[in-house]
Amino acid sequence: MISIGVDLGGTKTMAVRVEDGRIIDKAKKSTPRVGGPDDVLDTIAAVVAKVDPEQRAATIGVGVPGPVRPGTGVLAVAKNLPGWDHDVDVAAGLGERCAGRRVLVDNDVNVGTLAEARVGAGTGVADLLGVFMGTGVGAGLVLDGTLRQGPRGIAGELGHAYVAFRDFETAAVGRGELEDYAGRRMMEARARACHAEGDTTALVDLAGDSRMKSSTWEKALDVDDPVAVRLVNDAADAMAAALASAVALLDVELIVLGGGMAERLGEPFRADLESRVTARAFAGISAPVRSARLGDTGGALGAALLAEAAG
Amino acid sequence: MISIGVDLGGTKTMAVRVEDGRIIDKAKKSTPRVGGPDDVLDTIAAVVAKVDPEQRAATIGVGVPGPVRPGTGVLAVAKNLPGWDHDVDVAAGLGERCAGRRVLVDNDVNVGTLAEARVGAGTGVADLLGVFMGTGVGAGLVLDGTLRQGPRGIAGELGHAYVAFRDFETAAVGRGELEDYAGRRMMEARARACHAEGDTTALVDLAGDSRMKSSTWEKALDVDDPVAVRLVNDAADAMAAALASAVALLDVELIVLGGGMAERLGEPFRADLESRVTARAFAGISAPVRSARLGDTGGALGAALLAEAAG
Repeated sequence: MISIGVDLGGTKTMAVRVEDGRIIDKAKKSTPRVGGPDDVLDTIAAVVAKVDPEQRAATIGVGVPGPVRPGTGVLAVAKNLPGWDHDVDVAAGLGERCAGRRVLVDNDVNVGTLAEARVGAGTGVADLLGVFMGTGVGAGLVLDGTLRQGPRGIAGELGHAYVAFRDFETAAVGRGELEDYAGRRMMEARARACHAEGDTTALVDLAGDSRMKSSTWEKALDVDDPVAVRLVNDAADAMAAALASAVALLDVELIVLGGGMAERLGEPFRADLESRVTARAFAGISAPVRSARLGDTGGALGAALLAEAAG
Repeated sequence: MISIGVDLGGTKTMAVRVEDGRIIDKAKKSTPRVGGPDDVLDTIAAVVAKVDPEQRAATIGVGVPGPVRPGTGVLAVAKNLPGWDHDVDVAAGLGERCAGRRVLVDNDVNVGTLAEARVGAGTGVADLLGVFMGTGVGAGLVLDGTLRQGPRGIAGELGHAYVAFRDFETAAVGRGELEDYAGRRMMEARARACHAEGDTTALVDLAGDSRMKSSTWEKALDVDDPVAVRLVNDAADAMAAALASAVALLDVELIVLGGGMAERLGEPFRADLESRVTARAFAGISAPVRSARLGDTGGALGAALLAEAAG
């Protein structure tokens, strides 16, 4: 069986051709930063044509950076895509550009979780949570072997779990959501606030006025920068709280940890996080934390699996 | 169809006989406070015999106050039952006492949620969370129309969600779990700590050295007792944080609110909670909070539904 999967990201658009469960070909292009949905759809069609010029795949799966209306191929809002401030039917728009072939669309984190569950770190586990630390914190849920989308398509938004309920109205940075402590964008905001209050930190020395990347955090930790150490410690603690809560609520047996920030923080962070989740476990029933295995092709691969499942 | 449902609580054991979806008969006895599991099983058998003396029901459902090992009728630990510190097969033990009839066992909060979903406040809703405020905070999940137990049988433990992650190691009372703010036992501990520090409060005046009941809290609110007002406000805020988190993670469409404490706090508390959940909703996608409809027969009715579904 041949299927095509596309990971539509704010920066790049990647397509893979999968045959019998393995990636045979891969292509990527920069996602347009200006223009509108039509330009983005043209870009997707172009990477699809690169990996499948003969149009051998009957179905194309696409992972998109936003919630998808269940039962449709509609991406409503995507703040990281140009001009995407209204409902756009990705399935219809891409189908037109791809010889009328069938297109299936789901959230990028959902399909990334699906890929880890089927052919990555979660193979063989029926109930797991995939959590991805990057600019924000995204998550996907596989329950009883099935990806959960939810009736409104928002399932998996663990990044918006409130881990510090009193911060909702009082915090200087954020409002007490997991992302406010463990997402790179808000971690940078905290670091810059510390700097503004007089703390010296390698984070600002390294980044200057540019964005603090995951590698910036890694370098600052390497020199034991106190602000970086403290904020990464807070990130681990907030993550542990949210993950232990999710284990108690859902009884998932495994947590798969991925995303650019988690990759950079590496094994020490994973091991620390796992022991913190265990310490917080209800009735001693925890879940191991395993590193994601599929890296940045996970999303495209998961989209291909979505297409494959539809036949 | 005739089925029997039993709600085994720490204080009382209630059985109902359900015919064609309606409660036809009801009986209760005090749950033994001393002795061991055999005495508790004898009590269950006695209330079952009261509502079904002719043994017309083929199957008996039982809701128990603790997690049940999935696929079994085993209740492992129940701190509110006498001598229940080890695995006891409730299904086998009760079956022996009830002419070998089939016995199905699930957690009491799970079956209470099932009852609300099928014939109570959640009728017709496929994805909902039932949350019950009493001594602690219990919850049950119905996803895609099915009660979720989870592979280890702990699903629904929202009371152990961490809503204040920094409290884990530092709090004077509890460790930052929802129950620590919104469960009656820990709310009493907070009230007594305030009293010990010199605050006068109607809560202690009313309760003395006895346990603060839900009615104690209601009376203290009636006289605008500042400690009661503040702690109930905290309870609502912590509940809202945990519920909004659960909506974002699971995309449930409805929250059913029950339990003795919620009943006493009444409509003002429900309405306040609902508006707080909405204020915290991710992407404006919230869930209404409806009061449970089945009161204290919900558990027994849900257990009967469990039996009925098994045929």
